[in-house]
Amino acid sequence: MNYKELKQICYEANMMLPKLGLVIFTFGNASAADRNMGVFAIKPSGVPYTDLIWQDIVVLDYDNNIIEGNKRPSSDTKTHALLYKSWNDAGGIVHTHSTYATAWAQAGRDIPNYGTTHADHLVQNIPCAPPLSDTAIHGDYETETGHQIINHFENNKLNYKEVNMVLLAHHAPFAWGTDVHKAVYNSAILEEIAKMAWLTEQINPNANVLPEALMQKHYERKHGSNAYYGQ
Amino acid sequence: MNYKELKQICYEANMMLPKLGLVIFTFGNASAADRNMGVFAIKPSGVPYTDLIWQDIVVLDYDNNIIEGNKRPSSDTKTHALLYKSWNDAGGIVHTHSTYATAWAQAGRDIPNYGTTHADHLVQNIPCAPPLSDTAIHGDYETETGHQIINHFENNKLNYKEVNMVLLAHHAPFAWGTDVHKAVYNSAILEEIAKMAWLTEQINPNANVLPEALMQKHYERKHGSNAYYGQ
Amino acid sequence: MNYKELKQICYEANMMLPKLGLVIFTFGNASAADRNMGVFAIKPSGVPYTDLIWQDIVVLDYDNNIIEGNKRPSSDTKTHALLYKSWNDAGGIVHTHSTYATAWAQAGRDIPNYGTTHADHLVQNIPCAPPLSDTAIHGDYETETGHQIINHFENNKLNYKEVNMVLLAHHAPFAWGTDVHKAVYNSAILEEIAKMAWLTEQINPNANVLPEALMQKHYERKHGSNAYYGQ
Amino acid sequence: MNYKELKQICYEANMMLPKLGLVIFTFGNASAADRNMGVFAIKPSGVPYTDLIWQDIVVLDYDNNIIEGNKRPSSDTKTHALLYKSWNDAGGIVHTHSTYATAWAQAGRDIPNYGTTHADHLVQNIPCAPPLSDTAIHGDYETETGHQIINHFENNKLNYKEVNMVLLAHHAPFAWGTDVHKAVYNSAILEEIAKMAWLTEQINPNANVLPEALMQKHYERKHGSNAYYGQ
Repeated sequence: MNYKELKQICYEANMMLPKLGLVIFTFGNASAADRNMGVFAIKPSGVPYTDLIWQDIVVLDYDNNIIEGNKRPSSDTKTHALLYKSWNDAGGIVHTHSTYATAWAQAGRDIPNYGTTHADHLVQNIPCAPPLSDTAIHGDYETETGHQIINHFENNKLNYKEVNMVLLAHHAPFAWGTDVHKAVYNSAILEEIAKMAWLTEQINPNANVLPEALMQKHYERKHGSNAYYGQ
Repeated sequence: MNYKELKQICYEANMMLPKLGLVIFTFGNASAADRNMGVFAIKPSGVPYTDLIWQDIVVLDYDNNIIEGNKRPSSDTKTHALLYKSWNDAGGIVHTHSTYATAWAQAGRDIPNYGTTHADHLVQNIPCAPPLSDTAIHGDYETETGHQIINHFENNKLNYKEVNMVLLAHHAPFAWGTDVHKAVYNSAILEEIAKMAWLTEQINPNANVLPEALMQKHYERKHGSNAYYGQ
Repeated sequence: MNYKELKQICYEANMMLPKLGLVIFTFGNASAADRNMGVFAIKPSGVPYTDLIWQDIVVLDYDNNIIEGNKRPSSDTKTHALLYKSWNDAGGIVHTHSTYATAWAQAGRDIPNYGTTHADHLVQNIPCAPPLSDTAIHGDYETETGHQIINHFENNKLNYKEVNMVLLAHHAPFAWGTDVHKAVYNSAILEEIAKMAWLTEQINPNANVLPEALMQKHYERKHGSNAYYGQ
Repeated sequence: MNYKELKQICYEANMMLPKLGLVIFTFGNASAADRNMGVFAIKPSGVPYTDLIWQDIVVLDYDNNIIEGNKRPSSDTKTHALLYKSWNDAGGIVHTHSTYATAWAQAGRDIPNYGTTHADHLVQNIPCAPPLSDTAIHGDYETETGHQIINHFENNKLNYKEVNMVLLAHHAPFAWGTDVHKAVYNSAILEEIAKMAWLTEQINPNANVLPEALMQKHYERKHGSNAYYGQ
């Protein structure tokens, strides 16, 4: 893959976000990595999706050095960079302020695993990392945001290859995958799971997470060693 | 009807699901039976609706033997097969993870019959079958899912010809009908009833089911021996 | 106006209902009266909006005699007929099962007048008529539905020229106006007011109706003798 | 800029309101000021967006004198005029009855600052001004509405350049900006924030506003002297 191709893939993934109802105006950003070249492409900062062209996409390395591009990259670039640097198999990252996932983040709660729609994608609750300390906020904020996610995964023994999404308390979600299209998909799935979980608690305030066996069964039939979902 | 026609009907019914807002990505599947030929056509597993073509549809008999098709059939195929095998007048079956119906399933509750929109279609509450036992989950899961639905109907003296829809606790809805278009229609009706019932309880936590006479009247004017609805 | 024109106006009004998100499938029906000719045109029973053509519209007098048309009229025709017979200035009537208004009907509650969006259209709460008696249900149900609305207005000293909409408990809304376009408009307004009122109570369970002076001001600036809204 | 250009800008801004889902029918109005000419252009009263043409837009001075236009201006014109007269840097004003913001207004509550989506735009809660006194309502209502907003800002030491939006209790929102496109943007942002805040409280009734440091950080990175968001 060359830079042009990487930018175009990144552009197409970004354009999926308004199409899937996950962003309005300039909210959110998608990045696509090329692990061989050690770079990633990301949306420029503050450019509305209606104006975005693939030539605006910025290419950087994992230390935030701009490799190619005339625009300033997303203000969240350092978060993406740190996740790519720390997680070798992350090939795409998406940050949105999608309505229902953001509401759970603002509520400061993990999203309980209430059903098979959730378990088809992960067996764990969707984690909500605590707010950054004031020191971290006053420091290199976007890099610290990356650390906050990574630390929350380490502290809670979560594997980013199994749990492809996270909420940041009082902020919004991040999702990722082995490529940017999977990251976009995971962002959309998170939003749908967040909406269903909210409704579930509205309908039954005493709702329980699904039984362990059912949870494992649904995850395994899609992702296990004997998976039989798909072609 | 020949296999090609059956596949095309099945394809069109599947394509209605995203159009009606009942599925995203690869969620859900519709199947269409030809009771004379003793076969049914079903969506292939894991193929996004945006990529689906009618030639991908798979034809099977009610014992899950593939009769025609190059793709792996839906992972839920065995559930469809058992329902067709057990219920002679089922001509179409639809499984979705539609948002509101799935929320009721995750909440583990029957949907109360709160009004005539519901009673126009069935007089009973929409049943929520309990989760499968761990043994059933670890066994032939999708066939057991079919048994769980059938057993719940038998235990509660429900007639699948009158009650065309069911929720599976912690999972999602199934709906059916004498043909696949009616099954798609019932899936959409279930989603709308589920949304209205949730809102009804939000507006009045002490809401009651509608009076028996009104319930019967609305059902009978559409489905009774003296029905006068429609042409 | 001749029958053809009346049918076309009625057709166009009916086609607005799915466009405004007020109906799905065959739910709902709009009728348009010609007070000079003493007739009204109404949607045929059970015909989906996607299949409807203006030639299908049925013309009747206010005693339910079909004047012109090859189709069976809406199953709710007698309710429309009685309202036209009783209310000389009603020129159009719309019945829907729109989601939020129907939820309030199922909840069996009047919609409180919480703000100027409501007061721009009426100062009263939107009334919810009680369910019909079993005798009325077992009798001439659709005519009795009309009586139920009229009686509820008389018992509560409501004027149908000021209050253009009603909920029927456990059923759904009716709205009307001096012509069918105003009736469609009132149906859409009712749905929006119903959604806002539900949200208002969610955000503040102790919300109050708006002050009397503000209520009157907003109604009068649009509908009073010194109205100054519009051209 | 001449009157024609101003009218066209105002027209385009008004047409964004239905496109963004903020208004239905004739609800709402956008105005655009030309501070050099000392005039503003505003939507005509009661004209549906579907019928609106740029030639219908009315131009007035800040004392409500019509400078150019054949239509009667919006019934809310005096509110716009007073805000332009009082706030020299307001270049555009938008009034809508958008669903979620109006529900908060009807609930009579400020919208708490629950997260970074809110803090990206303002650090304060979104203020809800109390209802007008009966005297004010019976007086020059629309001018008094302007005074109510201005007084509420003064009494609460709010700066209209920092807080670009307000709710009026039992009524609906107003938003503004240095030009009308920013005012439209702020109206859409307010609606999204209102929806997220409602959901946040549904998911966690004890949700807290975001930490002060995070609030300031997000506001400053977009609006502070060292802002680094955008191009």
